[in-house]
Amino acid sequence: MRRSFTTEDVLAGQPRAVARAISNVENQTAGYEAFEDELAAHVGTGWRVGITGPPGAGKSTLVNQLLTRLHETYERIGVVAVDPSSPFSGGALLGDRVRMDDRNDGTFVRSVATRGALGGLSRQTEAVADVMDAAGFDPVVVETVGVGQAELDVAQAADTVVVVLVPESGDVIQAMKAGLMEIADVFCVNKSDHPDADVLVHALHAALRLRAGAAWTPPVVKTTATQAGGADALAEAIERHKTFLTAGTGWAERRALRYRRKVRRLVEAAWTASFWTAERRHVLDQATSGDLNAALGPHALAARLVTLGS
Amino acid sequence: MRRSFTTEDVLAGQPRAVARAISNVENQTAGYEAFEDELAAHVGTGWRVGITGPPGAGKSTLVNQLLTRLHETYERIGVVAVDPSSPFSGGALLGDRVRMDDRNDGTFVRSVATRGALGGLSRQTEAVADVMDAAGFDPVVVETVGVGQAELDVAQAADTVVVVLVPESGDVIQAMKAGLMEIADVFCVNKSDHPDADVLVHALHAALRLRAGAAWTPPVVKTTATQAGGADALAEAIERHKTFLTAGTGWAERRALRYRRKVRRLVEAAWTASFWTAERRHVLDQATSGDLNAALGPHALAARLVTLGS
Repeated sequence: MRRSFTTEDVLAGQPRAVARAISNVENQTAGYEAFEDELAAHVGTGWRVGITGPPGAGKSTLVNQLLTRLHETYERIGVVAVDPSSPFSGGALLGDRVRMDDRNDGTFVRSVATRGALGGLSRQTEAVADVMDAAGFDPVVVETVGVGQAELDVAQAADTVVVVLVPESGDVIQAMKAGLMEIADVFCVNKSDHPDADVLVHALHAALRLRAGAAWTPPVVKTTATQAGGADALAEAIERHKTFLTAGTGWAERRALRYRRKVRRLVEAAWTASFWTAERRHVLDQATSGDLNAALGPHALAARLVTLGS
Repeated sequence: MRRSFTTEDVLAGQPRAVARAISNVENQTAGYEAFEDELAAHVGTGWRVGITGPPGAGKSTLVNQLLTRLHETYERIGVVAVDPSSPFSGGALLGDRVRMDDRNDGTFVRSVATRGALGGLSRQTEAVADVMDAAGFDPVVVETVGVGQAELDVAQAADTVVVVLVPESGDVIQAMKAGLMEIADVFCVNKSDHPDADVLVHALHAALRLRAGAAWTPPVVKTTATQAGGADALAEAIERHKTFLTAGTGWAERRALRYRRKVRRLVEAAWTASFWTAERRHVLDQATSGDLNAALGPHALAARLVTLGS
């Protein structure tokens, strides 16, 4: 089977080729491994920005405002929308994805289904972002809902992670419980015209004092969805974080981490597949075909399966 | 190291022993494998009910009302709260769990942290539910937020899955996108005093017609958080699903599925750990220590790692 696009066209940022390449890696069709390996030499130039937070925090509106600011500096921006409730992923139902480019300003938007992602959400999001990166989209903005372990992993894989909170969406304690505090490089208090906004801002600053002495202290930026005022401050804050990363070792470290994660994922999938020989599948089938309470305990059965044939 | 509880006390449902046993399996301390294997002969008697839905759907209030109804039939009920915003998991911050038993009616509540769960959210929730099950808590109700892939997997592992939706939380399309439609055994339209409630109910029925001919068609139950009226109907609906499962092969199948998942998880973890020999770790370290763009592509490196030493 031949690919319906050339690597040269993808690297040149030709939109049709980029769209096809994204489908190729998303769906793991015809030679996507070789294509991803060819891309690898061109991945990592771009800045990856993650935007996450609880549902209803106004992330999508904020991303839209942020894109307008970023376009003052950056020409071609990629957006990967993982949030199922994002308007960007409007038509992303039952595998029927929609590419939106309503902004008409060089933004390339792709939504990633949160269900049924081949190889998992994290793999799929990274693969799509990698294609955009290699195709010269910089930054690539990844928007994901900040609830759920897989979704947080996706956000955390970015260079700069923005955590969006709103006064009414619960307090800092809730954010800490959801694991949002640890992954934030920048906090954004959205709907900051809400009377309780300053309470949230102060609580964030108090929580951040626990991190005193760290090389980077996440700034807390106030934004409102209705007025675009705060988006300037947010764009400025994430640019400062980018400068912090590139000035130190962070930029290279986050790239090495993404590469290692990818290799680990690949070898573990291949290795695990090699485990399930016909003999082992048969042993597991036998064990679950009768009375489970009379079967071996799961740890004992697992130990037997691992030593089997060795 | 000796355990701080006996298996006999756990099986007898002695609360202190159950609480300690839960901590043992949660934290994977001192001989938890042997303990889980001992439990295995006693797991699976109980009915497992999953309650899931978007944040803000009023799941916790509903669970409380449902517990009151269930207590008319069942004496000792277990609750595993996975939702980080659930009031049940009130103090579940940074590993400091709280066991609540405010109901004082034989309900045993345990919250599971959504972050940093040893071995993953799914493993931890199952392990806690298994202890409750073996200790004679029946049903065990698992409450989890219906956003996020890991969280949906948790809900899906139940015998009876209740998906709670509210008129204002978006439409059926959103629920479909989040993967909630496929896993529901019972739909609950909460806040059914909302003017748009019937629109949602009709949309659900329309979507369910796509499943016509299936052995079980999920009923749609209307509830309100303020009036306890609908909880009777909900309790009745889930009981009907339980009867459906026990009358057919579903009851045994869901148990076999849980057992297989557990064994698979165990062997794959052990097998993957055996992969990362010092030599392989060294090769990966070398590859990521220099210029990543000059390194092997991730697929080529993965292939080299897999064949290494074989």
